[in-house]
Amino acid sequence: MIKGIRFAGVESGIKPKGYDLGLVLFEEPMNCLAAYTRNRVKAAHILYNRRQKADKVRAILVNSGCANACTGKEGVEDLKTIGDILSETLNIERQSILFASTGVIGKRLPKDRIIGVIPRLLKGLKEKNIELFAHAIMTTDTYPKIVETRFKGKKEYTIVGVAKGSGMINPLFATMLAFFFTDYPVPQERFNRYFKDSVRGSFERITVDGECSTNDTVMLFSRQSDEDEDSLGLFRDSLNKAMKELSLMVVRDGEGATRVIHITVKGARTKDVAERVARRIATSPLSKAAFFGCDPNWGRFIAAAGDAGVPVDPSRVEIILQGEVLVKGGVEVPFDEQGLKGLMNKKDIELLIDLHKGKSSFDIYTTDLTYDYVKINASYRS
Amino acid sequence: MIKGIRFAGVESGIKPKGYDLGLVLFEEPMNCLAAYTRNRVKAAHILYNRRQKADKVRAILVNSGCANACTGKEGVEDLKTIGDILSETLNIERQSILFASTGVIGKRLPKDRIIGVIPRLLKGLKEKNIELFAHAIMTTDTYPKIVETRFKGKKEYTIVGVAKGSGMINPLFATMLAFFFTDYPVPQERFNRYFKDSVRGSFERITVDGECSTNDTVMLFSRQSDEDEDSLGLFRDSLNKAMKELSLMVVRDGEGATRVIHITVKGARTKDVAERVARRIATSPLSKAAFFGCDPNWGRFIAAAGDAGVPVDPSRVEIILQGEVLVKGGVEVPFDEQGLKGLMNKKDIELLIDLHKGKSSFDIYTTDLTYDYVKINASYRS
Repeated sequence: MIKGIRFAGVESGIKPKGYDLGLVLFEEPMNCLAAYTRNRVKAAHILYNRRQKADKVRAILVNSGCANACTGKEGVEDLKTIGDILSETLNIERQSILFASTGVIGKRLPKDRIIGVIPRLLKGLKEKNIELFAHAIMTTDTYPKIVETRFKGKKEYTIVGVAKGSGMINPLFATMLAFFFTDYPVPQERFNRYFKDSVRGSFERITVDGECSTNDTVMLFSRQSDEDEDSLGLFRDSLNKAMKELSLMVVRDGEGATRVIHITVKGARTKDVAERVARRIATSPLSKAAFFGCDPNWGRFIAAAGDAGVPVDPSRVEIILQGEVLVKGGVEVPFDEQGLKGLMNKKDIELLIDLHKGKSSFDIYTTDLTYDYVKINASYRS
Repeated sequence: MIKGIRFAGVESGIKPKGYDLGLVLFEEPMNCLAAYTRNRVKAAHILYNRRQKADKVRAILVNSGCANACTGKEGVEDLKTIGDILSETLNIERQSILFASTGVIGKRLPKDRIIGVIPRLLKGLKEKNIELFAHAIMTTDTYPKIVETRFKGKKEYTIVGVAKGSGMINPLFATMLAFFFTDYPVPQERFNRYFKDSVRGSFERITVDGECSTNDTVMLFSRQSDEDEDSLGLFRDSLNKAMKELSLMVVRDGEGATRVIHITVKGARTKDVAERVARRIATSPLSKAAFFGCDPNWGRFIAAAGDAGVPVDPSRVEIILQGEVLVKGGVEVPFDEQGLKGLMNKKDIELLIDLHKGKSSFDIYTTDLTYDYVKINASYRS
């Protein structure tokens, strides 16, 4: 809970049922750092937000159930209309209001329904209501995702984060929506690079299905007053920790996932090689299906590694799964297959691939590929 | 059936049950053109074959149930040992014998078992026995895949093709094993380029799961006598047709597949753009799951297109599914969703994406993502 930051979440009818509209209202103007999807097809809120005032943010309205992506100019106009009403009602500048959306692509926002529910939304605004907000931004998530951490600078500061997954989660940008709030006065320009690093080390290190959303958004809202640049390092550490934690909650709740697999590639000649090999294995359906079936079928990992588009010398590869060496010098070493199947029947799996070619490494978290992933995505809209 | 080319297939015990070892014996020395996987990790038969005599091929021994990949030098030595025995038994040069394998990666070939079964294999050799051979090379395939076509040059020629799928089927090289046999005397050097083109237009235009095998092999065996270069064009057309037909049999029998989706991307500025967009959609698990569920969820197609790593202008995109226009100028046009769901409940789906940016196009065939794909691959070894 942060003083002066109030949350609300309501059922507005965008989705057939459940919470689907959330609002955050800031008592004083906040700075906002944002990272958006690298998909060439970008949702209306991304096109819209970029033209608003990132150093005077007073509110953000977030909906689930409709991505407001591929809705053309009308999709952006809809946000202006809703923004005008919110601006009047709250008596703040329209340009101080941001938006975010998640849900089905291609449908226009039901803007009259959203406008109609604004009074109810405002009534629900409370500093303690972040859980309602977290519910309002969920789609196929099975639980709300919130982190909170504190650190001591000139005074005690708080960072609160909230995110939603859980499909279209992909390497290079791995959640659809995540918001962080802090009362620490972040020096915007100086911190922008660290913000990006923090995103890179967390949300860009998870994947569920290798799909890149049109709506991916990570935002950090921070106070502007009371400079305390001495505590920047502490803030950065705390933010990194909060982002990592929240990103792991997203991958753990990945669509249909029963396990989280932490893949580390080391001994690579360059970081790029390590990253490509790790990402290729993390998005390999055969490897992910093997994890679902507790099958130590390491041939699938090495085949994926060999298909990463970078030089891999199979005769040097070492593979360690759950601490057990399966492969050395590119060939199998005797291991207890039944025992290993037992070790793999866990929620957390560690897979280490050592290329024995250099000193660079990279790690990423992925899920297993399950019946439920197919079930959820063969019937998401129906 | 081609005179002088005899086939056999037997149960040798490499697999727990079923046919798993096939032999083709050529009465006279044949030329061989081959295309192998682009995976950096290559099976032993690929490393081995490259050092044999491609213009004097007398036999090829093919097994399923064991990929003989990631088996180090020993994997290649095993082939030499088996080759020595076969060479003695058949009284032909060892260097005139080729190999191919498919199955689980990382296990050595049970060479004593294979050697022990050679007499039985030789007894079964018959020109008409191609179906036994086709069965012997199957893994998760549900039916054998054979094509036969004829054309008239100086005399009547025949092309026979046989292939196996059906997982680890990926763009850029899409079957594990395919063999073509012809009595047409192919001019090797001149034809090599056309052979590659034919592979590119068929086996490289299908995908099941985007996975690149360590064992992918396409081979063309042809007679050497009786020059008839005038008929080269006719031969080329017939081979293209045979490869296309066989590659479509592979994708139709893709692991767990209930539908084949033919994706065409047109209106691209370059062929590379068209190809990348087509391949990205063809390997998108969300798009493939939507096809399984008969869900005209076009947002997933456009999101995948936007993530293809090439410029895509969403405001120009047109999407036509089963002949129905869903999207024009990047936004949805009204369509009958229930009617379209019915149209999608077919074995064959046509998806056309027009980027409206140029004149290049590319097409590819893919499968839907189903429960059975997960089932097959979560328990392939157990």
